[in-house]
Amino acid sequence: MVRRTGRRPGNPDTRDAILAAARTAFAEKGYDGASIRAIATAAGVDPALVHHYFGTKDKLFLAAMNSPMDPGEIIPQALTGPPDTIGERLVGLFLTVWDSPAGAAGVAMLRSAVSTEWTARLFREFVVTQIMRRVLPLVDLRPDEAPLRITLVASQLAGLALVRYVIKVEPLASAPQETLIAAIGPTIQRYISGDLTEAQQPEPRPGARPGSRRG
Amino acid sequence: MVRRTGRRPGNPDTRDAILAAARTAFAEKGYDGASIRAIATAAGVDPALVHHYFGTKDKLFLAAMNSPMDPGEIIPQALTGPPDTIGERLVGLFLTVWDSPAGAAGVAMLRSAVSTEWTARLFREFVVTQIMRRVLPLVDLRPDEAPLRITLVASQLAGLALVRYVIKVEPLASAPQETLIAAIGPTIQRYISGDLTEAQQPEPRPGARPGSRRG
Repeated sequence: MVRRTGRRPGNPDTRDAILAAARTAFAEKGYDGASIRAIATAAGVDPALVHHYFGTKDKLFLAAMNSPMDPGEIIPQALTGPPDTIGERLVGLFLTVWDSPAGAAGVAMLRSAVSTEWTARLFREFVVTQIMRRVLPLVDLRPDEAPLRITLVASQLAGLALVRYVIKVEPLASAPQETLIAAIGPTIQRYISGDLTEAQQPEPRPGARPGSRRG
Repeated sequence: MVRRTGRRPGNPDTRDAILAAARTAFAEKGYDGASIRAIATAAGVDPALVHHYFGTKDKLFLAAMNSPMDPGEIIPQALTGPPDTIGERLVGLFLTVWDSPAGAAGVAMLRSAVSTEWTARLFREFVVTQIMRRVLPLVDLRPDEAPLRITLVASQLAGLALVRYVIKVEPLASAPQETLIAAIGPTIQRYISGDLTEAQQPEPRPGARPGSRRG
């Protein structure tokens, strides 16, 4: 969860103006290209006020995305522990967050992400800078393989959110967490640490013609 | 692909009125509860005209959804062949359709599906009646397990579409089809025919505390 202070300081209009300027800047220039200074200028405020309201650039980005959780807190939690059960832990934590009241905000974020090219670009920046960059130093993966592995994990978890919480197709929508951890955990585990370059049944079956898969 | 006749017959306004009435009826009453007669009445036309324009109720539904492909054609194609390579074939076919010009229509359909509760309900009817119902009689699955297995497949394929074609996160967005078939095919294969009730590494590692996963 994103930790919030008890009250939000300052003028709500100013806050909203900063968030709107931040969304535009992050979508148009990317996370790295968007500076607090430029965002403050676009919002017509002093950069010190942006820091005062939102703290770091990361926190400003999370607020601009209405993110229901802070990947900076969730990811280390998910990746701590035995490497061979990381898949289960990741699915369990994902379901715990999305099945909580934060899930509604997650649905809203996913809805917004998908709605236009512009919001998709903003969400892509979020995935790359807030998720992929944080995961990379914490996992022991070959650097040339890690990005594909992480985006494969993202594809399964995003699809889980889509089918369970947005489209709500049964029985997946109401399946107990344990059922989904057992079903999807090994998928995530394999995407992280398994062999992704060959099929799991490499031996031709009797009678199978070589190359018939291409047919 | 949905086969289209060379020209669309009749008045485009009438066609659009029928499609709008169909969307409302399918979302509000579900596929089974929506009748061609009631759709025709809502659109102010004769039911015979709906049949004349769209053929069957299935085809009307596909047109109402702007579906880029007819699951009635795609699914039997994907499920024909050796059962132990169905995962690879399904991913391959999925990528072929989405990487083709039809993919843009797929993105539009997914965007629309996610945008509101109402369109999500419409898309859920699509998944259940056009995909799950067609898959069930073609696969040799225990009836009590089949629905969860199929929705798990849907979650991975929907997430693949989301990350590759809508959010476009690299390197998955540009990965060659063969890479993704090798990576994701075994996931689909396991969801269809594997054991989903226990972890793939059931043996505790030396030093692992029983129950520590819950901690």
